[in-house]
Amino acid sequence: MAQALTDFSRLCVHTITTKPWPLEKAAKEFSAAGVSGITVWRDTLAGKNINHARQMLLDLNLEVVSLCRGGFLPALEPAKRQAAIDDNLKAIDEAAALGAPHVVLVCGAVPGQPLTESRKQIQEGIAACLDHAAAAGVKLAIEPLHPMYADDRSAVNTLAQANDMAEALNSPWVGIAVDVYHLWWDPDLENQIKRCGQNGNLMAFHICDWNTPTTDLLNDRGLMGEGCINLKEIRGWVEATGFTGYNEVEIFSHKFWAQDQHEFLNKIKEAYIKYS
Amino acid sequence: MAQALTDFSRLCVHTITTKPWPLEKAAKEFSAAGVSGITVWRDTLAGKNINHARQMLLDLNLEVVSLCRGGFLPALEPAKRQAAIDDNLKAIDEAAALGAPHVVLVCGAVPGQPLTESRKQIQEGIAACLDHAAAAGVKLAIEPLHPMYADDRSAVNTLAQANDMAEALNSPWVGIAVDVYHLWWDPDLENQIKRCGQNGNLMAFHICDWNTPTTDLLNDRGLMGEGCINLKEIRGWVEATGFTGYNEVEIFSHKFWAQDQHEFLNKIKEAYIKYS
Repeated sequence: MAQALTDFSRLCVHTITTKPWPLEKAAKEFSAAGVSGITVWRDTLAGKNINHARQMLLDLNLEVVSLCRGGFLPALEPAKRQAAIDDNLKAIDEAAALGAPHVVLVCGAVPGQPLTESRKQIQEGIAACLDHAAAAGVKLAIEPLHPMYADDRSAVNTLAQANDMAEALNSPWVGIAVDVYHLWWDPDLENQIKRCGQNGNLMAFHICDWNTPTTDLLNDRGLMGEGCINLKEIRGWVEATGFTGYNEVEIFSHKFWAQDQHEFLNKIKEAYIKYS
Repeated sequence: MAQALTDFSRLCVHTITTKPWPLEKAAKEFSAAGVSGITVWRDTLAGKNINHARQMLLDLNLEVVSLCRGGFLPALEPAKRQAAIDDNLKAIDEAAALGAPHVVLVCGAVPGQPLTESRKQIQEGIAACLDHAAAAGVKLAIEPLHPMYADDRSAVNTLAQANDMAEALNSPWVGIAVDVYHLWWDPDLENQIKRCGQNGNLMAFHICDWNTPTTDLLNDRGLMGEGCINLKEIRGWVEATGFTGYNEVEIFSHKFWAQDQHEFLNKIKEAYIKYS
């Protein structure tokens, strides 16, 4: 079990978590609430001057933990795969401009295309981005997604697969984002976290909870402590690898998005200390 | 890839698939449609004389493929675990009375109880049923469930785990039910099916499809061919082990249950030949 969290020095919140707030509002509120880090989703940057956004976050003393998200690399047609690679190169540029050390990859999958083929295309797509990533000084974090997203969101569904892929790519510009929502059920999770850390690939740690019942495959994530995930145990495994990065609160929830976001942010802080 | 299916000699339909029909109606319709096997869900037996049900199915020339379902063995309190074992013993008796060669186990899980503890309780619970199973001549089929059910339905979420458990129990009265809906995403599936067959544990094969998008975690299964599951490939792996049992159509679907069940049964037959 991890040691209790006693302050917010490692608390990061994803902008998607407080989706109703635009970037400026979220940043101001996070900062005022004592949140230390922010993970910026690309939708919040649309039409914005990223240099200004970077300066705003600096002024608010918020560390940019990562940019979400790149990926979606598999496609049936080569032209679409190239378009996906181009979009990932753009995401790398955006991360560099924003000062984000890495881009999180939701790797993608094509319904009906064999998962083995999608995985091959993912690995090739990431490989095609590595020179650009190195030049920009931005890393790429493979995020294994829950098997319930294997149809159209990610053909990488376990930490073992992500470890295999990161090790095969064997680049200092590739690592892994560990999200408890996607991985908590895996009987091999402790071992795979250990392996991920030992190989220098553990780049990010995302937290939330799994509701029982879960009413929506995408947007019914729970606040830490509401569900069944052994969060403190998993954080203990992550920290045992030497990881000292942020605990990133990433919650997609129609329920919470419909609530007052100030109150929700207070709930996040309370749950972070009590249950994370 | 498996060879094409050309007739209905190995087609089994679960009573839950045509949920609006009571047992008698389902049996008559299945038989009239040329379906060869039936898997009976216990809810359809409630309040019925099982010997009469057995005779009815014999008269209709329907083979009873299995009884669904036992399991739900983990619980926080020992008394509840014992109650679960007692219910499984009852399911074994029902299967014996009905002439079903095995009971399918949805093993169970308790939200918040460590999965490792639930797995231990599952294995102990099955072990406690084995003498009774042997005496009744009824086998128990562990069904690994999709990881999205790890919170409250099953702590056994991969075929590797089911293989481990069946091999540890090491009894001729324990085997495994392979369901494509739960397992299709698993990168190790081909190997684990091979292992399952080699150890004599492959007892049942359930088919349906995975819809994109899936709108409900429980009751939005697709008809074969509607979704992204590599069904023919998986059936090929299953048959390569020497499996010659039924292809059991098990579809939970609010959508199909709301339709005319005769038309749905026709669709099942068509999809069975075309896509299974």
